[in-house]
This record gives sequence, C-alpha cells and structure tokens, in this order.
Amino acid sequence: MSTLTTTDPRTGVSTDSGISTTTTEAIAEYTRDALRAFSDMRRRSRAWRSGLLRALAAGLERDRAALVDAAISETGLTEGRLNTELTRSAFQFRLFADAVDEGGYLEAIIDHAAETPLGPGPDVRRMLVPIGPIAVFGSSNFPFAFSVAGGDTASALAAGNPVLIKAHGSHPVTSRISYESLSTSAHAYGAPEGTLAIVYGQQAGADLVADPHIAAVGFTGSLHTGRILMDIIDQRERPIPFFGELSSVNPLIITPGAARSRGEAIAHGLFASVTGSAGQLCTKPGIAFIPADDEIIVPAFVAAANAADAQPLLNDRIRASFGEIHHRLVADGRARSLVTPSAGAEGFTLTPAVLQIDATDLTEAATEEAFGPLVLVVRYRSLDEIRRALRVIPDSLTATIHSDPSETALAAALTASVHDLVGRVVYNGYPTGVRVSWGMNHGGPWPATNTQHTSVGVTAIRRFLRPFAWQDAPAELLPVELRDDDTSVPRRVDGELRLAVS
Amino acid sequence: MSTLTTTDPRTGVSTDSGISTTTTEAIAEYTRDALRAFSDMRRRSRAWRSGLLRALAAGLERDRAALVDAAISETGLTEGRLNTELTRSAFQFRLFADAVDEGGYLEAIIDHAAETPLGPGPDVRRMLVPIGPIAVFGSSNFPFAFSVAGGDTASALAAGNPVLIKAHGSHPVTSRISYESLSTSAHAYGAPEGTLAIVYGQQAGADLVADPHIAAVGFTGSLHTGRILMDIIDQRERPIPFFGELSSVNPLIITPGAARSRGEAIAHGLFASVTGSAGQLCTKPGIAFIPADDEIIVPAFVAAANAADAQPLLNDRIRASFGEIHHRLVADGRARSLVTPSAGAEGFTLTPAVLQIDATDLTEAATEEAFGPLVLVVRYRSLDEIRRALRVIPDSLTATIHSDPSETALAAALTASVHDLVGRVVYNGYPTGVRVSWGMNHGGPWPATNTQHTSVGVTAIRRFLRPFAWQDAPAELLPVELRDDDTSVPRRVDGELRLAVS
Repeated sequence: MSTLTTTDPRTGVSTDSGISTTTTEAIAEYTRDALRAFSDMRRRSRAWRSGLLRALAAGLERDRAALVDAAISETGLTEGRLNTELTRSAFQFRLFADAVDEGGYLEAIIDHAAETPLGPGPDVRRMLVPIGPIAVFGSSNFPFAFSVAGGDTASALAAGNPVLIKAHGSHPVTSRISYESLSTSAHAYGAPEGTLAIVYGQQAGADLVADPHIAAVGFTGSLHTGRILMDIIDQRERPIPFFGELSSVNPLIITPGAARSRGEAIAHGLFASVTGSAGQLCTKPGIAFIPADDEIIVPAFVAAANAADAQPLLNDRIRASFGEIHHRLVADGRARSLVTPSAGAEGFTLTPAVLQIDATDLTEAATEEAFGPLVLVVRYRSLDEIRRALRVIPDSLTATIHSDPSETALAAALTASVHDLVGRVVYNGYPTGVRVSWGMNHGGPWPATNTQHTSVGVTAIRRFLRPFAWQDAPAELLPVELRDDDTSVPRRVDGELRLAVS
Repeated sequence: MSTLTTTDPRTGVSTDSGISTTTTEAIAEYTRDALRAFSDMRRRSRAWRSGLLRALAAGLERDRAALVDAAISETGLTEGRLNTELTRSAFQFRLFADAVDEGGYLEAIIDHAAETPLGPGPDVRRMLVPIGPIAVFGSSNFPFAFSVAGGDTASALAAGNPVLIKAHGSHPVTSRISYESLSTSAHAYGAPEGTLAIVYGQQAGADLVADPHIAAVGFTGSLHTGRILMDIIDQRERPIPFFGELSSVNPLIITPGAARSRGEAIAHGLFASVTGSAGQLCTKPGIAFIPADDEIIVPAFVAAANAADAQPLLNDRIRASFGEIHHRLVADGRARSLVTPSAGAEGFTLTPAVLQIDATDLTEAATEEAFGPLVLVVRYRSLDEIRRALRVIPDSLTATIHSDPSETALAAALTASVHDLVGRVVYNGYPTGVRVSWGMNHGGPWPATNTQHTSVGVTAIRRFLRPFAWQDAPAELLPVELRDDDTSVPRRVDGELRLAVS
C-alpha cells in the first residue's frame, strides 16, 4: 500500500494526495458487498432507481464548487470547460433517470401461448435484466463526464447494477470528491451498502478486472491499457464483456466547394475543434483532408496555431507521448511540419502542432493518434486520392464531411466511403462536443471501440443488461412490466409493438 | 485438399461424400465476393431483403424430400423430427422476414436539433446497420435449424449481411443440399453473387474465422471448439465478436408438492425431454432435482429407461465422448448408476443412462454435460440443499421449476435462486422444444454462451448489427427510415416512441 501523488499540470508541481492505493483484500470485500447490493437492488422498482439517479445528479450540482476546484488543479482544464462538464455529468444521470422511468430500454416482449406452424407454443415473456457488479475505469480527459461520475457509472446504475470505479491516477482528489458526493447522496437516498465503490492504483484496477464477481468492464482510455485489461479477461475462468473506447483519429474532409465557399469559417471551426481542451478529446479531428489548391484554410489555421498560447496537457505521460509521436511523424520524412509545438515556461504546457502531407504519401505510420493539439493536414487532388488515403487510416469514432450544397453527388460518395470506417458521420460541423441524447452513437469499428454499442447516450445502457425469458410463468413470479395488466412500459405483444399508457 | 466422409450413424457405415475440403485460396475468394455482395446488399430496401428470406423459405420447402432424406442418413434422427425441423427452418426465415418488414429491429431514433442544458444540440439520427460478412458454424444436432439453413444464417441475412457457412463434418451431404437450395433460391431472386457461401473441413473453419473480411462469428457447438475459435479471434489484428452457444446442463427442479400431485406425469414428460433426439439437445435437462422421499418419479423414469430402444447418436465422437463422461461420473463414486446404457447391435446406437446422487454429494465433477440420453437425478431434502447444489452446477441456458400451485413461496424462492444462473426459466414444462418467437431467449451466462444475446427468436438479429449515427445530415443522405416524413418503422423521436403508420 502506498499513497498517490496529485500533480498540477499547469505548474508540474506534485504533492501527496493522502489517498492510499487499494489492497487486493479490500477489493475482494468491495465486490462481495457489491454482490449483496445487487440482490437488494433487484427488488427495487424502476421509480426507486430513477429517484436514485436524480439524487446523484442533485448531489453533484450541490458539490459543484469543490469538484470544479479540484479538477482545475489536477487537469489544467479551464473553469468554463469543467463547469460545463459537470453540468453534463448531472444531465447524464437525469437523462438515464428519464429512460428508466420510460422503460423502453427493457425491450419487453410478450408472446402469449399460441398455435404455431410447429405445434402449440408456450407463453414466453422476455425483457432485459441487469448483469451484476460493473467495473468502470475513469478516463483522464473527462474528470467528470467519463470518470467517477461519468456516463458508464450512470448507465450501469440505471440498468440496476452496482458500480466499482477505478479512479484515474491523474486526478485522484477529484475522483475521491466525486465518489464522496455520489456515495453521500446514495446513502441519504437509502441505497444499499455496496451500490458504489472506488478503488485506487494500477494493481487495484487489474484486481478488479480479474475479480470473479465482476460482470463487465467499461473502459475509456488508451489502446495499450485496453489490451492489457483484455488480456486479464482472457485469463479469467469466466470471460466477461469488455466495453472499451480505445483510439480514434476522426478524419475530417473538406470538399473543394466547401473550401471555396467558406474556407475562412472552416479554418476557425477546425482550429477550435483541434485545440479545444488542448486537443485531448477522443473525437478530436486528427486528420483533415484539404484540397491541394486551397490557399485560405491552411494559412488561416497556421496563423491561428502560431498565435496560440501554450495550454497544459493533462499529465506528463500524455505530454511525453505527444512529443514522441510528433517526433516520429516528422522523422518519417513524408509529413512536413507547418507549425512546431513549443513548451510553455512551466508545467506540461504546449502550443499546437500542424503537420502536412500529400494524400499520395499517406501511410499507416503517419496516422498514429497524437492525443493533444495536433492535426495532420492531408492535401488531395481527387476523390480517388481521398478514398485511397481513407484505407490506411485506422477506423474511428467519427468522420466529418464539409461540402457545399451544390456537391450532392460528392457528399454521397464520401458518405459511402466512410460508412464502414466509423460509428458517426458529421456534416458541416465538428465531431467534438458529443451531444448526450437518445440517439447519439459514440463507438466505432476497431480500434475505435471493440463493441457493437455506444458509450454515450441512452442506448449505452444496453451494455450492462442481458435478455431473460420466463416461460409459462405464474403472473406473481413475473416482473411487473411483463404482467398482462401492466401498461407502464412499451411492449411488443404477440409481435405487435404497443406504447405505454400513462 | 481431401474429400469428406459421410457416415450413417444407424449402421456406422461410411462412404465418400465426394465433397472436397475448401482451400485457403478459395476462402479468400469467397470472403472477397462476400464483401462485394455486402456493398450491393446495402443499396437494397428492407422489402427486397424480406422477399429474399421468403424465397429461401419457399425453396427449402420445395426441396423438403431430398433434404430430409439426406439428413436421416447422416444424423439417424427420425423422419418426423427432421420434417418438423425443416418446417422450423422455413418458419425462421419467414419470421425474420416479418421482423425486417416491421422494422422495429432498426431501433431508429431521431433527436432534432434543440437547445439543451449544455447549449445548442445538433440533429442526431441513429439506427442499427449491418456489420459485414458473417461466418456461421453449423451444429451437429440440428442439421437444418442450427446448420446451413439455420437461425444464424437467417438472422445474419435479415440484418443485411452476407453469410459464409462452415458445414458440420457430420452431415456434409445435407449441408451441401441445403446450401444448393438456398443459393439456387437466392440466385433466382436476384441476390448478388457472394451473398452466401459454404466451406468444408476443419482448416476451412479456422481460415474463415481468421479472415480479415469476416465481421463476426456465430457458433453452436462444444465449449472445446468454441475456445479454439476464440483463441483464433484473439490472434487477429482486429478482434471480432464471437457469438457462441457452448454448453448447458439445464437443471430441472421438482418440488415436493409437484412430486406428490403429478409425479407420474412428470416422470413421463421428463423422460421424453431427456431422451428426445437421443438427448442431443442443448436444452436437454441433464440434472433433475427430485425429493429424497419420492417413490413415484424415479421408479417410473427408470422403468421407461430400461424399456427404451437403443437410439443412434449423431456420430462416433459424440458416442465415444458420452461413454467417457458416463465412465467418469460412475468412477467418481458418489453417483450411483440406476440404468446403465448399452450399445445396440450396430451403428452408434445406445440406450438411456440414469445416474443418481445425493444433493449433499454433488460436486462440479458430477455436473459435466453428457451430450446424449443421460440424466443425473439429484435427491434433496430441503430448499437449502437445492441452493447449495445449484452453486456447483455450471450456468446454463435454462432452468425448470415444477411446483404445485399451493407452493407459491417455494416457487418464488427457487426462481430467485436460478435467476442469475440461466437465461430462461420454464415453469411446469420442459426446456426442450424451444419456441421460435419474438420474445424467446436462448442464451445464458458462461459457459452456456459468451454473450448478452439470444441465438433463437427475432432479437437474435441484434448480434449482426451495430449502431450508426448521422449528425446534421442532409435528408437525401439519410436512410429512408430516418427521414422526417417516413412513417414505415417505429421510431423514437425527441425521446418519444412512435408507432409506424401503415
């Protein structure tokens, strides 16, 4: 057992957080408590659970000042950004509360006993049920919305599962205060002991994933760490689902028409998207396709990058890795540095980097994700060059297409080209600033994620549920939502979808 | 390249099928064709796809006589059983056709642009899209409904994916005729080249799973083979989902009240369920909890088993493995053999086996799945003994509870005890004879399956889909189902579920 360090990325100064790493014994105790809590939670109604989620949201807002203060010191992100992010965290809990009340996520189905082409069929009723204690790994870049009080925690709880959170090592104090906020609210609301737990330290994270009581893992982080956790899962006696969001370069394509008609505006929008939060967003457009003959966007972008102040990166590892990747990209020889990043006077600060490469020179080596304020400009002369270049870019969470309304066929061709490579396509906008809503999809083909699910938006709840069927069950043994007289949730009855009646 | 043998399990006589194993080069060609077919299929409407599924169903029925004949010779299953199974295969294609027409499986969601607590939100539209060429492994025990013309093929095609099928080595001729039926119908319907393919031989199966163009694998078979395929996936550069149905012992519990009030009827029902299709069903109740003081069920069951004719097992490997497992269970010493299986005069035939053990003696070693006509009777004295015994039984597809209407509390306690261990609970019936319907769940916790999905019933389609989101897309670039004026499918619009308008 040792204590964790907390570091201010603006100054690079580290202090002892006073937070101890969690022992293997403590983790075994937490997961046993979680299993007991799971049994208890199963007896509660959906209304009880949505009430819990709203209580957690209210608690986060009550503790806003302390949370934002701690996060500023540990992440170097601005107060404005962090305030918005905390609002997002609270909003996520409330949106999942709405979804739990609405009940469509249960996917309730009733097939009454009937004659079928195969003879008499029994009564079969099905809905989704929670799967058990969930391990959630907080990410470095969203100390609230993808961390202790993040979307994985909210969706796992909404589904009816207890949650055990691995605090991210780069914001331990924010994690602890977040956890205290959530657990105080949960306790006051009457949630069972074991509904929530937090663990600290790398070994604790590994222990959590290996623990036999853990039913699934939610993870947002590097491909490298994701691979390590997946290896631990492969060695378990009972494999469990791993929902990983791992890596994304998010190609953005600017057509000739868009470049001509609104090049200046795109340069500014793209600059804001590339450098917001110091470029440390999983949806940051890391590769921008710009026509070879453009004389507006690239110069404007370069001017903005040259004028930009240094911003702190989240921690020294991210800054070191950013430097190494930048070095590799330049050393490769095919990409040319248009703006070279420079370190600020203190801390882990850095100015933006801009590289440029010809589309025909693009290789997989040049497409490595640089987590931080860097964009690789790819100059192209034809749709064919874009198509060929897309083939070497790793699959991503998003692709973005900027086109002119007159370029209908080109926009359609580009849409077809990116469809199999990403999970979301954005038109004439930017992929950062992911909307939290019912229909958002934040997930994509490997290595963006390893799943057929989103981690943002209401349908993220599906990750932490499994189907269960009751055959010829006496009414009193069925969940309320599957009894004949219930109308509280949408259901498919004998093949026909029926709305809830409120 | 070599040719495959076809064996009649009733006689044990093998002949050359004339079917060659598929080469690595041929597989690479098939998966390239499948990728081209995938692009083509994406441009087709849902109505086109449901028409294809119905054409395949009609073709199977047209070819019924040849299909059933071949399957009798290769599986030793009865003509009655195989005719019903072929009806089931055709029914599955038609049920998925209905589901495709209905469109609820798309999970369409529209969030119009709106002000949100986090500022202005873009227009986001989401639905499920197909994922690419699917590898399907036929199983030995359902030469139609879980093989070439099975539910995995039907659901993968329904989702919009091409399918490449690995024929099961124990019915190569049935597989080839099934494939010819499907591909003739598909060709006549106008489906693109590459929509369907079949491969033969173990190495071909391994090559298929390793092929970079394959997007997912559907598998029904042994835990052993499942593990091998999962290892191949772990070695791929790009991991893909594996949907495996692997192993299940399906505990069945008879309460004291049920034993008293209808012991005789239960003995006959249980015997039919244990020995139907020579016990080679993944939902066969392999373990039956019977009260220690019962004097009706066990004697009646034993009498029926002693009187039973030998039935052929599917192949020599299954019979050999059955013999080994039976030997281990008896050698363990705690289980007592009540009826010893004996081989018939020729072929792979065998009479049923009945073993008995005291609930307090049950160990994990005694719960090994014996694929074939074997049941382990567990004699118990209390609910507590059942609970403790359930803990050593591997998680399963199903659990079954027979109780008397007067035993409300006991039935509830038993339901709670099995809930986390299975995917379906059956009351006062039998788990075999899985109903193919909208709400069926055929899946359970590891090692029953490794997924949070069913492989039987309409929702099996979800395995072969992934979410995709369009942000601020021009209407003409959206799928029809996501355009504002479309009312052909159920959709969630701005959080509110709306029915389709026909």
